[in-house]
Amino acid sequence: MKHTCLIALIGLLWLSSSLSAQPKYALAVHGGAGADPAHMSREEIAGVETRLQAVLRQGLAQLKAGRSSLEVVETAVRSLEDDPWFNAGRGAALNSAGEAELDAAIMDGSNLQCGAVAGVRRCKNPVSLARFVMEKTPHVLMVGLGADRFAEESGLEMVDNDYFITERARQALRKKQGTVGCVALDQQGHLAAATSTGGLTGKRPGRVGDSPIIGAGTYADDRGCAVSCTGVGEEFIRRQIAGQISQRMRFNGVSLSESVKLTFADGLPDDVGGVIALNRQGDWVLHFNTVGMSRGAADSQGRFMVAIGKDK
Amino acid sequence: MKHTCLIALIGLLWLSSSLSAQPKYALAVHGGAGADPAHMSREEIAGVETRLQAVLRQGLAQLKAGRSSLEVVETAVRSLEDDPWFNAGRGAALNSAGEAELDAAIMDGSNLQCGAVAGVRRCKNPVSLARFVMEKTPHVLMVGLGADRFAEESGLEMVDNDYFITERARQALRKKQGTVGCVALDQQGHLAAATSTGGLTGKRPGRVGDSPIIGAGTYADDRGCAVSCTGVGEEFIRRQIAGQISQRMRFNGVSLSESVKLTFADGLPDDVGGVIALNRQGDWVLHFNTVGMSRGAADSQGRFMVAIGKDK
Repeated sequence: MKHTCLIALIGLLWLSSSLSAQPKYALAVHGGAGADPAHMSREEIAGVETRLQAVLRQGLAQLKAGRSSLEVVETAVRSLEDDPWFNAGRGAALNSAGEAELDAAIMDGSNLQCGAVAGVRRCKNPVSLARFVMEKTPHVLMVGLGADRFAEESGLEMVDNDYFITERARQALRKKQGTVGCVALDQQGHLAAATSTGGLTGKRPGRVGDSPIIGAGTYADDRGCAVSCTGVGEEFIRRQIAGQISQRMRFNGVSLSESVKLTFADGLPDDVGGVIALNRQGDWVLHFNTVGMSRGAADSQGRFMVAIGKDK
Repeated sequence: MKHTCLIALIGLLWLSSSLSAQPKYALAVHGGAGADPAHMSREEIAGVETRLQAVLRQGLAQLKAGRSSLEVVETAVRSLEDDPWFNAGRGAALNSAGEAELDAAIMDGSNLQCGAVAGVRRCKNPVSLARFVMEKTPHVLMVGLGADRFAEESGLEMVDNDYFITERARQALRKKQGTVGCVALDQQGHLAAATSTGGLTGKRPGRVGDSPIIGAGTYADDRGCAVSCTGVGEEFIRRQIAGQISQRMRFNGVSLSESVKLTFADGLPDDVGGVIALNRQGDWVLHFNTVGMSRGAADSQGRFMVAIGKDK
């Protein structure tokens, strides 16, 4: 009887170690908080879901092929920037002067390297410019004309400001909060995060939200977690939401889900936004205090989900 | 014998309560990390010290008169902005195109309200513009042309970019890191922080450092502490230095000095900068890992100090 138990135990240990030896990777994406599926047409819901599914599948394929989480979050956010359905890159919300001003950030959790841009008007893919700032300069954040000039010098694709302004954005009478973001864990066990946005509809020219602020809207640290936020940026900046979620894990040893819960409970007003967060174990949390958040996540174990409204 | 003890105890309790009932206030200022007093003339050392003493005295008088810490940090930083000796406002370091681009932030620890500006070229006092962003807009951060335009609309004093460019800045061949900052505790027990800078000498146009990034170079939270940083901004952004110092106190219950020590030990490279930090008890920590940091602090108990080199 004792021997049977021992053999069963050894079998279990072998099984669990072989499972954990499997290449493990995961990613999560968001297309902004605030959308209410009750006020969206079937076509709109299907349109968002189909797009997020495509981005997840593309990211899974890259991760399976051994690509870095940094590359995966950049590619995912680029795809969402190029798609006029989201408030980032093409399709960006317009400021009060009717222009697009774009913000983006990217961060590598393996070494805390990061790059960000704000108030960009002509660089087609702000998230790629953020990566250039990270890799080709000693700087972390570049803004305004200087950022666009750097993009041009670096040979990134430039467009007229009109490129970003789509019929969809022009007609966006309803409050639009379709910031996009991605967090990923690669086979090497490294985390990365990226976020990109056109900001608030009707914002003052020059206003910058949390997306390009490292520690506010975007953060990644292998010792904690990777986070991308969406919502009323000002509330995320003053409370360092993305960084706080990672730091609570590091400083207090709480779990990812506990950390997200504690951070939201720490004075964040109701109905301001949401986060996607991922740790090195491949656990994800997609949390929001708005009526909805366009989101999706998938991993090497076969989990795959997209949703807009609250979890059932 | 027992009675004598009891009376002594009551006396002690009365004494300590009357001491704590004294109006208690404090402030600390910095004029940048990196300066080496061994390479400064006597006149230069005296010049910096005299200026910091004047700012401290002015702040003490305001605090004694019951003014808010928010007002005190704004006034102190304005004075340092107006003084061409420091790398903020007039006297700002110039970017690679020979222009001044100014950054500043301010934060109220009583309610986490905050404001910041980056890449400003014509507003005379960026710290006051940061306060306007905090108080007159729903936003936290404004950058570039939009920020200058908002300053103009708000009736703040505007100047030509040439105003900021002094002979001193033009001749700054040596690495100059004279960011300025102030933290204060008022009689109402509230903390505030402000920071202002011209950034790195020869920076790319558009580059923004940690000063205007809430949680990186500037943070204030009555539940933790008030912090203003100076140094290589990129290192302070990626590690959320100002916010981290406050959050370690809140999350882990460590003292201010312990929190500063832990934060610096958490991967911050050598020789990158320093911080001034102040808690609600009026304890201050002026810490740096460079060869020097122009700094000073004073309080209602009569403590008053300024220094540049390491503590003896």
